Amino acid sequence: MQNNKRFILASRPEGMPDETHLHLEEVPVQEPGEGEIALKTLYLSLDPYMRGRMNAGASYAKSLEIGDVMTGEAVSEVTSSNVAGFAKGDLVIGRTGWQTHSVATPDLLYKIDPALAPASAWLGVIGMPGFTAYVGLREFGKPKAGETVVVSAASGAVGQVVGQIAKMHGCRVVGVAGADDKCEYVVKNYGFDICVNYKDDDFEDKLKAACPKGIDVYFENVGGKVFEGVMKLINDFARVPVCGRIAHYNQTKLPEGPDRLIPFMGQILIKRLMFRGFIQSDHLELLPDFRRDMSQWLKEGKVKYQEDVVEGFDNALTAFQGLLQGRNRGKLVIKVA
Amino acid sequence: MQNNKRFILASRPEGMPDETHLHLEEVPVQEPGEGEIALKTLYLSLDPYMRGRMNAGASYAKSLEIGDVMTGEAVSEVTSSNVAGFAKGDLVIGRTGWQTHSVATPDLLYKIDPALAPASAWLGVIGMPGFTAYVGLREFGKPKAGETVVVSAASGAVGQVVGQIAKMHGCRVVGVAGADDKCEYVVKNYGFDICVNYKDDDFEDKLKAACPKGIDVYFENVGGKVFEGVMKLINDFARVPVCGRIAHYNQTKLPEGPDRLIPFMGQILIKRLMFRGFIQSDHLELLPDFRRDMSQWLKEGKVKYQEDVVEGFDNALTAFQGLLQGRNRGKLVIKVA
Repeated sequence: MQNNKRFILASRPEGMPDETHLHLEEVPVQEPGEGEIALKTLYLSLDPYMRGRMNAGASYAKSLEIGDVMTGEAVSEVTSSNVAGFAKGDLVIGRTGWQTHSVATPDLLYKIDPALAPASAWLGVIGMPGFTAYVGLREFGKPKAGETVVVSAASGAVGQVVGQIAKMHGCRVVGVAGADDKCEYVVKNYGFDICVNYKDDDFEDKLKAACPKGIDVYFENVGGKVFEGVMKLINDFARVPVCGRIAHYNQTKLPEGPDRLIPFMGQILIKRLMFRGFIQSDHLELLPDFRRDMSQWLKEGKVKYQEDVVEGFDNALTAFQGLLQGRNRGKLVIKVA
Repeated sequence: MQNNKRFILASRPEGMPDETHLHLEEVPVQEPGEGEIALKTLYLSLDPYMRGRMNAGASYAKSLEIGDVMTGEAVSEVTSSNVAGFAKGDLVIGRTGWQTHSVATPDLLYKIDPALAPASAWLGVIGMPGFTAYVGLREFGKPKAGETVVVSAASGAVGQVVGQIAKMHGCRVVGVAGADDKCEYVVKNYGFDICVNYKDDDFEDKLKAACPKGIDVYFENVGGKVFEGVMKLINDFARVPVCGRIAHYNQTKLPEGPDRLIPFMGQILIKRLMFRGFIQSDHLELLPDFRRDMSQWLKEGKVKYQEDVVEGFDNALTAFQGLLQGRNRGKLVIKVA
């Protein structure tokens, strides 16, 4: 009988998670009960939000309990099914976690159509990260032709899609990333107008030069010094969809003063800025629109994407650490089987 | 010949403005030229935003230059007119400044109908402050029946209207003010469900008890400890129209740390909060709707209001200092003539 490999939350990290927090263990593969479907994981998605789930205390969703399988979306193949409409060999996506095999009820699964996009893309460009980009721009960024849109984590799973959709709206698109090759990639492959490396000493000067008419939309994925640089260039009536704050996910204590919250609120007032935190799962009513639009864009070549595929389930933790440090190139997925 | 008394910005204050910053002077009354209208001020409006205009550097509007007449809206009577449609005795509102007489072109004036509301009310409940309340709730607060709306500066010119409109939407309305008699007033006269004095030592406990289901809309007029207390009770998907930050207008340096901006942005993300700074003058397309609705509400007694009328133009500076310290009761106006 085959075993199921899985990563378990063994203890809560402060700072970067490692082997003391995530234990790799093997248990027998579970048989599906009545109304259940047995799955073999093909691709596991690794995403920055997962770091938040490891903390105690509520975030968007309930945090993980100690002993839980690490949370995550995956593309799986049905190996046996006790549910009509799901047959051996079907491909599904679902929040089945960091494990090589799983058993799920059909309400938690979505059957994907590999004719529209390859299996792994359903975790990226046409999956949750692509949908995040779509929701954030459409509902909150609302870019208008001629405006300047700044995209942090520009080469990441969300950022690459944000930039390409903003280009379709006729915007000047300025990427920010943490490596020169990432910057080159988004300009060459996704049509970003320019991209700035936030690790450069003169980052703020470069960002200013890249945004001669200021910033109208800032798609916030990272926080930290990118956020600070953007706020110095932000225009009246700018919109800031707040999607992620990866620079702060491993932060363990409040930074020292002065307390910038008060001048920040003053800036919101005087410049009539709009800040809105969001998560794609609050907007599932837009999912059919997104799948229709994105499959069309992919077919027409209007949206391209890059995946960083790591082979082997056992490498998931190392790959996740790399993600939190910006070592991936494009959407990070683990090829499990 | 009559003199025009006026207050001039003599120097820029740091902290509370006084006689060294605003000089009272007398100059001959100006005659109207071609296309101009001569006015005698009846009521001068005093509003917190004026403090910002005294600083160097752009706020919403251009700041005042040294030597300028202090900015402000007033209700005036036409004393002579070289413009068709404006006759001696007509009442107008306009941004004519802190002076007893002025000369203006008709594009800067709006003829008021004293049959709809008394002259002074055109500076308050049916004027700019009332419109501010209307715009902020309608466009950004979007209160829904059953939600909890917290209104800071609850008894002020804006807050009193915010609370009454929110009640019409079927909300639980919680006021916050800086004096027990202000709190009693808004509950007794405007139908606020409850009002909490932020100067009480146990303010945060009282606010929590007043908001058993948390806070869905916070109409931000003040900043400071009210803002801090609210943020501890704010619900997922809350909306915060940022209208003013009076607690900080006289602040001269950044407060000490820790730097709360980073956890604040985390809260925006996790709770999917919406913050939006606004000023009524960006939304003048709503002014006809507002005047129609508000004159109807006043007629039906659905909206009530309180004015703090100070007699005598010379008292404008002292009254303005009182406004910045919360000493007024209701909308502050100077009865000039």
